[in-house]
Amino acid sequence: MRKTKFLPWIIFIFMMAIASKMNAQEKAQVQVISKPLDTDMMVRIAEIEILPEYLEEYKAILKEESSESVKIEPGVICIFPMYQKENPTQIRLVEIYASKAAYQAHIQSPHFQHYKTATLKMVKSLKLIEMGTIDSESMQEIFKKLK
Amino acid sequence: MRKTKFLPWIIFIFMMAIASKMNAQEKAQVQVISKPLDTDMMVRIAEIEILPEYLEEYKAILKEESSESVKIEPGVICIFPMYQKENPTQIRLVEIYASKAAYQAHIQSPHFQHYKTATLKMVKSLKLIEMGTIDSESMQEIFKKLK
Repeated sequence: MRKTKFLPWIIFIFMMAIASKMNAQEKAQVQVISKPLDTDMMVRIAEIEILPEYLEEYKAILKEESSESVKIEPGVICIFPMYQKENPTQIRLVEIYASKAAYQAHIQSPHFQHYKTATLKMVKSLKLIEMGTIDSESMQEIFKKLK
Repeated sequence: MRKTKFLPWIIFIFMMAIASKMNAQEKAQVQVISKPLDTDMMVRIAEIEILPEYLEEYKAILKEESSESVKIEPGVICIFPMYQKENPTQIRLVEIYASKAAYQAHIQSPHFQHYKTATLKMVKSLKLIEMGTIDSESMQEIFKKLK
């Protein structure tokens, strides 16, 4: 009977340990991103036209590259690929990088290099448009990796 | 001494109750958003040109409206307002609504109605472009209100 007396305390301490560890992980994730925000952040819209014969192949490669970037690169806040419903060869990407350095790291990553090489012949035109944000505080309500 | 014997069990049960309540709240929030996703979700890019003399005033009203919408409307996943750095009267919005119904509710909201009325004379041109998404699963890694 002596042993069971301490069991609830052991469970209690164990649960507190789990809770405090989760908090520490969350905090670490926040600190990486939320510092630079306005100052050095890079926002861009890419306007890409794809040769119709390559469209499905292009979208598969782009999907792989953009999801990989968001998943494994902490400085890639957003690469959101879309196509115009009325003109499906017109691709649009909204790209947000935490800093110029994060962007430089991104374009040197193996997944970006693969995308660039593999899709070169599929791209009819490419326009990269640097954007400014109108409400940088509210971006933290929209994008998961901010705040 | 009898009383203190049950204290750790009481604390344990209390903590379990809190934990299960938090889970229930999180689940409820997820269910609202993540069900319709591909099927009924609405994604759009708005291309808006503003008369230069109204630009600052317009951006202030837009900022108010977009942040309000994201904050208080559960079905507004994203309204992300930007301007072209090389051509600042060219405004771009990326809009994501959880469903057609969420969009209908949004355009009937007082904050949208105010925006629409107040900025009517400031808008030189407006183009609403319906977009399809290329990777709807990865959107959950980007946008806070998804998943």
